[in-house]
Amino acid sequence: MKLTILRTELNEAVQNVSKAVSARSTIPILSGIKIDVSDRGVTLTASDTDISIQHFIPLESSSKTVVKVERPGSVVLPAKFFVEIVKKLPHEEVNLEVGERFQTLIHSGATEIQLVGLDPEEFPVLPILEEDRVFSIPGDLLRSMIRQTVFAVTTNESTPILTGVLWSLQEGVFKFVATDRHRLATCKTNIDTDPGLKFAGVVISGKTLNELSKIIPDQNTLVDIVVADNQVLFKLGEVLFFSRMLDGAYPDTSKIIPSQFKTELVLNTKSLSDAIDRAYLLSREEKTNIVRLLTTDDGNIEINSSSSELGRVQEHLDVTDLTGEPLRIAFNSKYMLDVLKVVDSEQLYIGFNGAMSPIIFKPRDHDNSLHLILPYRTTN
Amino acid sequence: MKLTILRTELNEAVQNVSKAVSARSTIPILSGIKIDVSDRGVTLTASDTDISIQHFIPLESSSKTVVKVERPGSVVLPAKFFVEIVKKLPHEEVNLEVGERFQTLIHSGATEIQLVGLDPEEFPVLPILEEDRVFSIPGDLLRSMIRQTVFAVTTNESTPILTGVLWSLQEGVFKFVATDRHRLATCKTNIDTDPGLKFAGVVISGKTLNELSKIIPDQNTLVDIVVADNQVLFKLGEVLFFSRMLDGAYPDTSKIIPSQFKTELVLNTKSLSDAIDRAYLLSREEKTNIVRLLTTDDGNIEINSSSSELGRVQEHLDVTDLTGEPLRIAFNSKYMLDVLKVVDSEQLYIGFNGAMSPIIFKPRDHDNSLHLILPYRTTN
Repeated sequence: MKLTILRTELNEAVQNVSKAVSARSTIPILSGIKIDVSDRGVTLTASDTDISIQHFIPLESSSKTVVKVERPGSVVLPAKFFVEIVKKLPHEEVNLEVGERFQTLIHSGATEIQLVGLDPEEFPVLPILEEDRVFSIPGDLLRSMIRQTVFAVTTNESTPILTGVLWSLQEGVFKFVATDRHRLATCKTNIDTDPGLKFAGVVISGKTLNELSKIIPDQNTLVDIVVADNQVLFKLGEVLFFSRMLDGAYPDTSKIIPSQFKTELVLNTKSLSDAIDRAYLLSREEKTNIVRLLTTDDGNIEINSSSSELGRVQEHLDVTDLTGEPLRIAFNSKYMLDVLKVVDSEQLYIGFNGAMSPIIFKPRDHDNSLHLILPYRTTN
Repeated sequence: MKLTILRTELNEAVQNVSKAVSARSTIPILSGIKIDVSDRGVTLTASDTDISIQHFIPLESSSKTVVKVERPGSVVLPAKFFVEIVKKLPHEEVNLEVGERFQTLIHSGATEIQLVGLDPEEFPVLPILEEDRVFSIPGDLLRSMIRQTVFAVTTNESTPILTGVLWSLQEGVFKFVATDRHRLATCKTNIDTDPGLKFAGVVISGKTLNELSKIIPDQNTLVDIVVADNQVLFKLGEVLFFSRMLDGAYPDTSKIIPSQFKTELVLNTKSLSDAIDRAYLLSREEKTNIVRLLTTDDGNIEINSSSSELGRVQEHLDVTDLTGEPLRIAFNSKYMLDVLKVVDSEQLYIGFNGAMSPIIFKPRDHDNSLHLILPYRTTN
């Protein structure tokens, strides 16, 4: 293997695939990045078995020569050092040459680096997926749907299935669900695809979705999603992102969302968020994060929290609309702030069924998302 | 105590003094911020006994009313919560009122906060310093001198005196020295002051200087420095910053700086820094940080590092000037990078006396700083 490659393009590819390198793998080869050089270009691959990322660099890009191949071949290089050094090479032209026993020589300006390479044959082969279930979604929409839901997955590994987000596609509606049993986040969008295309019960790790989010380009490009038997593949231009599905059955959450409410509230999202944030600051010092919301006689609401050591925060909030029974409810303010952070609507609807029942949040501008948090069961 | 104050000015003062609040004080009163209200304005004070910071807010600022006092008085409020909530109050006008048993009411917009205040009589009284040793220095110069030296203090508490920076003023020369026994950083500047004014052996904690650095305003204002018996006071406009001096005698470091050199090198600071940085990346993986510098037959230098597991980095560097004996020396590259980061001169002089003797760094543009690192004693 011998080639010349431009540092900027190599660096972009290395940074992208490095997100799949596991920091503490027990399998030495997985702490490396695989480089495959063919007459068509250079392919970089990294994998931690849960995620695999592949980035292809073609010979030319916008009619500029990016790669000059002298001799095709493959090698695996130690990721941690390679990722850092590629950022800092002194010259835009980088020469890579693999010699005996995968000894690799990197040349750039007056810098010469010898690296102990590993045998690419030992690197796991990426699956070849059946591409019969494929659809496309704008990258920024996918990123927004991840953001709307991924915060609600559990970090508790004792229920592994809940560390993921449940995906389904039914009659053109692409839907995400996440829950940690204390709260629930859902969102959906209409996909312009063959109405016969459908799947359900696909669960993808929250961590994986966070990594995917970072790699989706800012420009509004389409992401192709391939749903295979136990893998999902995301195609983002020259980047392929493979994710394993989580094993197990996701609990049915459809029945816990009420359709009738005893108290209904419409108010400005930002005003509520600011008020809860101040009350949270005090409740945080008590380690409980408990904040209370109560309806007032003048048809508005009060938010308050108290701490025996510090004192009390009390907020009066004018609402746009309040109907139904008077209410006094306590909840984990951190959970409510998590919801309010992702609501992308100026006005917010909140539905209640008394102090012991779930609280439901719906944006007023659209019905693409719905969030739920359980109240804190307290007597005062 | 009862007053109205503008949020922006209150917030600035609270953020400033909060740097002196100790996170885990065993003395409860020190986890608070003291507020004193007089007919002249509002004074905020915080102290962790090593550092004390006081910020005065006058009634008016640029002919705008900032404070309206209804009733003078004092209270101590819990710092952690107060610092956060002041940032987030909804309205620019903030009312503060202290009632019985130091119960404090904060009012801003529709937010009402009751805080459990503490007795201001319990708060330590700041020392009244004799102001007979006073001089002034531009804020950005003071910050630069701190930056040139503070990285070289030790973090090892077994030699407390070396956790500080040694200050002296002799014949109008203000000088800083810091060392952790592996390296030495010094810098000096000429101060326009009474030539009779002098002091030596003043040692100020590195941590304190870092906090001071953050509080020095960006605008080029003069800082007044008052050196008293066991305290140093910095006056930065309306802010007073008190620092305790460290006890003990600072070791004499004047004899370890050689004045003659066997090998002398002048080169571009940035080129050397970049080359060392790349070699450091590899040496870091070996946990030793060892990098070697050697003179080459063509009158230039080579920088290299190696790792049995990863390989080798080799850099050829053209120098501006090289005189004296050939050299091969090994050192801790982290220490050298720390020096190269603060050198504010395009060209750098480095003096050597063989592989076992200290390495000396001097900027070429001025002689206000000098740095020294000990080599790594290795046989290869």
